[in-house]
Amino acid sequence: MALQAEQQAEIDQQRSNQQPTLRVCSPGLEAYLYKAIPVLDHGFVRVIDYMGDDSAIVQAARVSYGQGTKAVSNDAGLIRYLMRHRHSTPFEMCEIKYHIKLPVFVARQWIRHRTANVNEYSARYSVLDREFYIPHPDHLAAQSVINNQGRGNVLEGAEAEAVLRMLKEDATRSYDHYEALLNTRQDGETIDEDRAGLARELARMNLPVNIYTQWYWKVDLHNLLHFLSLRADPHAQYEIRVYADAMIETVKAWVPIAHQAFEDYRLGAFTFSKQMIDAMKRMVAGEEVNEGNSGMTKREWREMMAALDQ
Amino acid sequence: MALQAEQQAEIDQQRSNQQPTLRVCSPGLEAYLYKAIPVLDHGFVRVIDYMGDDSAIVQAARVSYGQGTKAVSNDAGLIRYLMRHRHSTPFEMCEIKYHIKLPVFVARQWIRHRTANVNEYSARYSVLDREFYIPHPDHLAAQSVINNQGRGNVLEGAEAEAVLRMLKEDATRSYDHYEALLNTRQDGETIDEDRAGLARELARMNLPVNIYTQWYWKVDLHNLLHFLSLRADPHAQYEIRVYADAMIETVKAWVPIAHQAFEDYRLGAFTFSKQMIDAMKRMVAGEEVNEGNSGMTKREWREMMAALDQ
Amino acid sequence: MALQAEQQAEIDQQRSNQQPTLRVCSPGLEAYLYKAIPVLDHGFVRVIDYMGDDSAIVQAARVSYGQGTKAVSNDAGLIRYLMRHRHSTPFEMCEIKYHIKLPVFVARQWIRHRTANVNEYSARYSVLDREFYIPHPDHLAAQSVINNQGRGNVLEGAEAEAVLRMLKEDATRSYDHYEALLNTRQDGETIDEDRAGLARELARMNLPVNIYTQWYWKVDLHNLLHFLSLRADPHAQYEIRVYADAMIETVKAWVPIAHQAFEDYRLGAFTFSKQMIDAMKRMVAGEEVNEGNSGMTKREWREMMAALDQ
Amino acid sequence: MALQAEQQAEIDQQRSNQQPTLRVCSPGLEAYLYKAIPVLDHGFVRVIDYMGDDSAIVQAARVSYGQGTKAVSNDAGLIRYLMRHRHSTPFEMCEIKYHIKLPVFVARQWIRHRTANVNEYSARYSVLDREFYIPHPDHLAAQSVINNQGRGNVLEGAEAEAVLRMLKEDATRSYDHYEALLNTRQDGETIDEDRAGLARELARMNLPVNIYTQWYWKVDLHNLLHFLSLRADPHAQYEIRVYADAMIETVKAWVPIAHQAFEDYRLGAFTFSKQMIDAMKRMVAGEEVNEGNSGMTKREWREMMAALDQ
Repeated sequence: MALQAEQQAEIDQQRSNQQPTLRVCSPGLEAYLYKAIPVLDHGFVRVIDYMGDDSAIVQAARVSYGQGTKAVSNDAGLIRYLMRHRHSTPFEMCEIKYHIKLPVFVARQWIRHRTANVNEYSARYSVLDREFYIPHPDHLAAQSVINNQGRGNVLEGAEAEAVLRMLKEDATRSYDHYEALLNTRQDGETIDEDRAGLARELARMNLPVNIYTQWYWKVDLHNLLHFLSLRADPHAQYEIRVYADAMIETVKAWVPIAHQAFEDYRLGAFTFSKQMIDAMKRMVAGEEVNEGNSGMTKREWREMMAALDQ
Repeated sequence: MALQAEQQAEIDQQRSNQQPTLRVCSPGLEAYLYKAIPVLDHGFVRVIDYMGDDSAIVQAARVSYGQGTKAVSNDAGLIRYLMRHRHSTPFEMCEIKYHIKLPVFVARQWIRHRTANVNEYSARYSVLDREFYIPHPDHLAAQSVINNQGRGNVLEGAEAEAVLRMLKEDATRSYDHYEALLNTRQDGETIDEDRAGLARELARMNLPVNIYTQWYWKVDLHNLLHFLSLRADPHAQYEIRVYADAMIETVKAWVPIAHQAFEDYRLGAFTFSKQMIDAMKRMVAGEEVNEGNSGMTKREWREMMAALDQ
Repeated sequence: MALQAEQQAEIDQQRSNQQPTLRVCSPGLEAYLYKAIPVLDHGFVRVIDYMGDDSAIVQAARVSYGQGTKAVSNDAGLIRYLMRHRHSTPFEMCEIKYHIKLPVFVARQWIRHRTANVNEYSARYSVLDREFYIPHPDHLAAQSVINNQGRGNVLEGAEAEAVLRMLKEDATRSYDHYEALLNTRQDGETIDEDRAGLARELARMNLPVNIYTQWYWKVDLHNLLHFLSLRADPHAQYEIRVYADAMIETVKAWVPIAHQAFEDYRLGAFTFSKQMIDAMKRMVAGEEVNEGNSGMTKREWREMMAALDQ
Repeated sequence: MALQAEQQAEIDQQRSNQQPTLRVCSPGLEAYLYKAIPVLDHGFVRVIDYMGDDSAIVQAARVSYGQGTKAVSNDAGLIRYLMRHRHSTPFEMCEIKYHIKLPVFVARQWIRHRTANVNEYSARYSVLDREFYIPHPDHLAAQSVINNQGRGNVLEGAEAEAVLRMLKEDATRSYDHYEALLNTRQDGETIDEDRAGLARELARMNLPVNIYTQWYWKVDLHNLLHFLSLRADPHAQYEIRVYADAMIETVKAWVPIAHQAFEDYRLGAFTFSKQMIDAMKRMVAGEEVNEGNSGMTKREWREMMAALDQ
């Protein structure tokens, strides 16, 4: 992604305007504010605002009068305890607002997370830009033959070329037709004075879901971590996972203690079912446990073995 | 919309399976259950399940032990009082579940209503059908020149023809290419044995937002009425308004008293601002009030006049 | 809890009114409808209405047209897969409504679960009944000396007697004073014609939080299971846990397959952190792992050992 | 309310810690940060943190890249338009966090607003302070004889004295017994070494609902305004209305343009039903309209007349 000159100027202007505040600050996240982290070919993630930091989690957990902190070591212990035991409400006391540019098909997955605030660019009101997501050849994956919603090997040679050509040509043509339907070119110029032009809310229906949109997305830390645990997961589609990865980077800068707890107790964790715990007990006791005598389905057994890197 | 034979057979089968229940029933809505109300060219609205009726609203408001009803006339008065004073929680005690088929760009507006439950057809997992929304010529509106997100006159003659041709051709081509990318025809047959086919989660990115999707959408009556008041509004886009209209029909069959209150206190109502009330007082007192001496902006004055049909 | 005669008559009346419906039915839950499951000394849980059953979960997951079921064995496998992988939205397609009578301090914990619909008896509008929770002597526990929010041994002898006497006397006196403040006895009779009586919304402030209230509480199955996993947990306060236990009984009758999955993958499960998984791998490999070389805190080690019954 | 010396010292400390930030600041609200606004006899409202200001509403509405502001006059017009037309999502982009001390019966009304984040002081974990709400004699109102949930005249003379004496004595006694049940005095000292003391989670059940609790409450501006429109309403109970009034003061300092729009289009507004609009049209046309020929119920007619100060 290359920012347009005026976008970069605006970021520079926003970053030049420092003011004093009595609010809690996160120096780590101040360094990220307004900057665009590039994602995919035209997308980005920008932190626009935030509220709270690690100490705000502790403060809420203690519901004490004031900061409620005693020593950093204690605070870290408390945050880790809260994360481990899924005491989620103190994490809701931190809030973050992002500006995100993303393909429509990614936006469609994203919006399923309902506990957030959103304002999206309106294609009823405004004309969309000519920007489409075209996968990098490294991510042009075949359909997985074992997982209905997964990817297999990367396409190569003539097939890859044909796929890319089709995606690019269709993007170009659909946008050309979008302009023709609107009877307006992207720069605002009317194409044919004798035509009226189709309403924007109708013309956009011809655009494919790899066109880019943008929105402001505001969420509390608890719900953000829930979103990230699902969308940074290896089973998530690559095109949303890269956004989750960029956001995890901002979380690490913002609330480093909560971030580490998240890595240890969520991303790196695994929930063992009743049957898996039974199997583990027997294995720890030295017993030979296998799929056949485990009481699990083949799939569950495979999931447990994967969690144990066996 | 024409239902496929197997869809109709399934509806018939569902409607043949009557069972006894001790739950509250709405005879009016039972008559609608499972049937498809056609919307747009390929869409529909189907009621799949429901919980509660007018008496459930009353019961919750009275938090009485049991039905809490005394006489129908009283119940209607109570429901109307609740609606008028925006006591919304008793309306949350009724729930309805729809099966809806709709274009993706309509789904994108719809999903902004977060207080609902949704399960959508997954284009990561499954292949979408070759069904696109192509507006009826009567709804091929030009961009409004006075309202940025509104429609103007209906397009005519050569321009209308060109627009329809473009929409149809692009839909056809994009779906042909979708099959080519997948290396699979809609009937499941592989096109070229020597190719792998692009992953479904990637191939769908080439499809325009007028393709149809479907989902189950479950919501409580309060949030449904809020959705309907926004989406049945004349300012809503026509393509979502027709869904709202179809759903209002089911609400009327389901909870006739609440529906009438909704018509009187929401759809037919208008909120007068402080300045508008001041103006009304003066008008009622016989004073000549006009835009200039009203203390309102031009726009507010116009809105009030429209509400009073002046 | 002993139901009043008129309550029992109303339940009998409700259960006598069977009607035909085309909706999905849960025969197991029909047997529970309206009946009161006694909880604590004066409380109860009653199922008032429900929507959906195990097949509704499957239907939503498949977003198929119609029932989407093929064979019961497949459905069970799908439901168990959804539960294990925390695909929560299909469980949101089932809804249940309870009528619950519970002490105010329990209601205060309960209401923290926000994703539900509630209508509570209003002490602004109506006069509360003279019913207070007085613990059974077996549950008169001392403060735990190791857990700040836990219970220790059961009190005995003179101390237990003194505690019970104080609770009973204070309940009696506070209700007597409530009547005196209102200048109205529970039966509605005015006490002193020359006095006005304090407003109900003020008089109730004198009542302790062990007084009983009641409400209608409606929730979808996903959020209900989340509530139950937290409130049926051994760390939950006994007085709310007994409500959770009663509700689990109704879930078992309603959606037996989902209930079994819930037992296996939630109630009986345990989430192992990254460090715990590392320790497990070493243990399975035959290594001697102890608190000191585990890389865990003392508390985490204890939690893992407890999960493994070591 | 008199702050304890250590509370005041903590506020002073918090207000002495100014830091630079790149975030949007509200100078008006900075002046309020951490300070306690006294409410009732022992309660308070403190702003602990906030995110955004009037410009953040505009920015979200424009989903522009950057501040999206052109001129203050335009911004005000846009914010007023958004408020008037209930375009609520841009207001969700501002967030505020309060620390509030309030009686339990007020907290019970408050918590019904579900779209907020809360961390409350835990009486399972900690011992509550000896602080009870005792109404000022001016607010010792009799039950209204016309409105089931309203107040009538203020009590006077012997009845008022008797009421206050009862409330005070019961508060004192219940707290004395709370200490006795805990076997611990408020200062932490054990009362009787030979007794165990009842668990905190049980002992608190003896306390009346006029005892004070405290919590952190975080909410977005849209939901805050919804809360305030209901709780600053004359029909709200006085004891929660005074909290709403204190919070409106902070909203005015924080987002002055949105606050003015809120006054004009919500607090000062009134929704006219279909029947009321019909009556208004006839009145404006000079027709004599009265309750009898208005097509409204007596109550609706009275509500409309009240809105028009007739």
